[in-house]
Amino acid sequence: MKKILIQLDSDRIASSFDAITAYDAGVDRVFLYGGVGPDEVRGIVYGAMFTRGVGDLKNSAVFIGGSSVPRGEALLDTAKGAFFGPVRVSLMLDANGCNTTAAAAVAKIRSKGDVTGKKVAVSAGTGPVGLRAAALLAREGAMVTLSSRILARSVTACASIKERFGVEVSPAEATDAEGTARVLDGAYAVLCCGAAGVTLVPESIWSNHPTLRVLADVNAVPPLGIEGTESGWAGYEKHGKSIFGALGVGALKMKVHRACVARLFNQNDLVLDAEAIYAVAKEIEQQ
Amino acid sequence: MKKILIQLDSDRIASSFDAITAYDAGVDRVFLYGGVGPDEVRGIVYGAMFTRGVGDLKNSAVFIGGSSVPRGEALLDTAKGAFFGPVRVSLMLDANGCNTTAAAAVAKIRSKGDVTGKKVAVSAGTGPVGLRAAALLAREGAMVTLSSRILARSVTACASIKERFGVEVSPAEATDAEGTARVLDGAYAVLCCGAAGVTLVPESIWSNHPTLRVLADVNAVPPLGIEGTESGWAGYEKHGKSIFGALGVGALKMKVHRACVARLFNQNDLVLDAEAIYAVAKEIEQQ
Amino acid sequence: MKKILIQLDSDRIASSFDAITAYDAGVDRVFLYGGVGPDEVRGIVYGAMFTRGVGDLKNSAVFIGGSSVPRGEALLDTAKGAFFGPVRVSLMLDANGCNTTAAAAVAKIRSKGDVTGKKVAVSAGTGPVGLRAAALLAREGAMVTLSSRILARSVTACASIKERFGVEVSPAEATDAEGTARVLDGAYAVLCCGAAGVTLVPESIWSNHPTLRVLADVNAVPPLGIEGTESGWAGYEKHGKSIFGALGVGALKMKVHRACVARLFNQNDLVLDAEAIYAVAKEIEQQ
Repeated sequence: MKKILIQLDSDRIASSFDAITAYDAGVDRVFLYGGVGPDEVRGIVYGAMFTRGVGDLKNSAVFIGGSSVPRGEALLDTAKGAFFGPVRVSLMLDANGCNTTAAAAVAKIRSKGDVTGKKVAVSAGTGPVGLRAAALLAREGAMVTLSSRILARSVTACASIKERFGVEVSPAEATDAEGTARVLDGAYAVLCCGAAGVTLVPESIWSNHPTLRVLADVNAVPPLGIEGTESGWAGYEKHGKSIFGALGVGALKMKVHRACVARLFNQNDLVLDAEAIYAVAKEIEQQ
Repeated sequence: MKKILIQLDSDRIASSFDAITAYDAGVDRVFLYGGVGPDEVRGIVYGAMFTRGVGDLKNSAVFIGGSSVPRGEALLDTAKGAFFGPVRVSLMLDANGCNTTAAAAVAKIRSKGDVTGKKVAVSAGTGPVGLRAAALLAREGAMVTLSSRILARSVTACASIKERFGVEVSPAEATDAEGTARVLDGAYAVLCCGAAGVTLVPESIWSNHPTLRVLADVNAVPPLGIEGTESGWAGYEKHGKSIFGALGVGALKMKVHRACVARLFNQNDLVLDAEAIYAVAKEIEQQ
Repeated sequence: MKKILIQLDSDRIASSFDAITAYDAGVDRVFLYGGVGPDEVRGIVYGAMFTRGVGDLKNSAVFIGGSSVPRGEALLDTAKGAFFGPVRVSLMLDANGCNTTAAAAVAKIRSKGDVTGKKVAVSAGTGPVGLRAAALLAREGAMVTLSSRILARSVTACASIKERFGVEVSPAEATDAEGTARVLDGAYAVLCCGAAGVTLVPESIWSNHPTLRVLADVNAVPPLGIEGTESGWAGYEKHGKSIFGALGVGALKMKVHRACVARLFNQNDLVLDAEAIYAVAKEIEQQ
């Protein structure tokens, strides 16, 4: 019986990235559905639920992607609502790579030591990866500050994290290097989630920072988010700090993505969202 | 050479149900085409006709699904019209499961004995499954009555059966339990094709019915179409009558669906519509 | 690691012809993307570039089809522009079969002898195949005349060939048999690229033509483009001339199409457009 992954994407073009990664994870067949709205999910999920016996349902699974995390979450909710009793299939949400990238970045930061009670800044953190990473760091016990160029956006982001994950994250505004320096005051670690090609943390700020020990960046397009670093660094030490560049994080992200897709087919009742995906990331990081 | 099934669906989202079932039937690759209109069929079918030599064309086939039977029939007609001489591929129509479900239900009823000359009621029969089942029962020689809550709909349904299958089916109206009792008067069997979660035949009507011997239901969502039964029954005897619930019919439907898809690849000139699919259902039922 | 071909089609329905041919060429998985616009290409191509290591990128490739050659060329240009350094995948353009059919037709004509300095007419040549074939013949050193029923179209076509391929092709008008006779005056070969079911060259014109030695036709629907011939001819001699019918050309076209798709997976930096596809066609023709 073939392992079939039904890929639901809220964008018109279903992600080729997700589909190729699914095949590299060992899936036999991927169904690419693009432009999927919540009202179309139930019919598609029923097709997975009613074609195979309950004992065989672990061979069918649903992956939810697309560039919009809220739309992905809406698809996930509808999919969950279609199930009843043991008649269900495993689900994974990774809209825009939000979960696998955030999980990999946080696992990398966490690999350098416990963050409990320590201040961690998520810089330019209102996007998909920043939101998820801030939540995961807060769940690890860190005192998380999430900054944005516009304070209102940061406030909204922190509220959405509170609602979805039940953890507190502090909003902050940083419109320039000085603002970033203020956000980093007393921080143990920083994760930069800014736009591609935009420097967020000048080397002058971090090079002799008194408390910063770990810096991570998910921007792979020069200039990088953290000045004076390289995207391929995976824990490289500079100025006495551990640095993770976007490709250093990305290598773990790909492993996590593939491992999570593979696990969907071990049982028929998994729901892989941020928390479960982070658990996989930590497990792989520690190997 | 890989067995390729081209799945044409008149709905925007091509059915995952049909695609998974195709893979479980042994197809190597399924092409999912959604939102297909008749004017798009010829080009797609040409792609199947002109890529492989005539001797290899049995490795390509076309499956037509979607929620609308008339639209599926229009796609089927266009596909047939694209062929010439031996340059053709096998075709199967099962829009909304109309043919495989109807064939399985009728084969189950027929498994309890000949229906020639006997009255059989198809209750709430104006939908895809009811229309096909009524036609198949009439072709078996039964005196079929097709009921609806609205007489005009039943009349239209019977006319469409006459046009497509060349057999007579009697229209009837049944707006309540009394109406249903009248429709069942003198009937040997009844097939309930009503909406999910709607009871059509109260137990008081069928439990000591003088002529009814076989009852079948394609509604799997409680309350079932036939009160006092269970969806998993596959010929279970109660009150001296044989009962087939939706899952009892459904198990055969899945076998028929898979067997029909598999047969598409034995030759390049099959057209599997109601009659041929019913022949497969009877063959499987008798095994 | 599976060989994945991403098929981009500018038509809403991605070509089943191209997808089946890809599987017959040994591709493991084809992703069918229909209705693709240039603004959607980059994201899809990034998905191919960033999922596998550089050493494995030869296992991912992009095929561009669709009925419109200009739109296909726009997709190709965008795909090329997405690459950087060694992070790229192989590409093939064959919108409407323009390259594989033209390459096969020209290779067949060329198989009968050198065309350098000889006049070759491409009749009704303003369509996808005619444009490509005229360019390839001119690149072989032939003096090419491209005719159309409307002179302005031919002039535009020749200008587009000059721009894309850097070679000169002479425009000509042929509205009837007399016009065609004038176009063929002094010609060594003619390739008919007219509409299906339209005769372009009456037998009276070619049967005792003093200079014509090779005739080829890509119209497979009777009446054929060259009167008194058969579509299956693959170099058949009649009236002392070598004739290639549409199926004679088509058999080579299919081999070329499959061979080109297969070669995409030998390396990660191929770009198979007209010139490279023609090189493959000549190689196969000479085997």
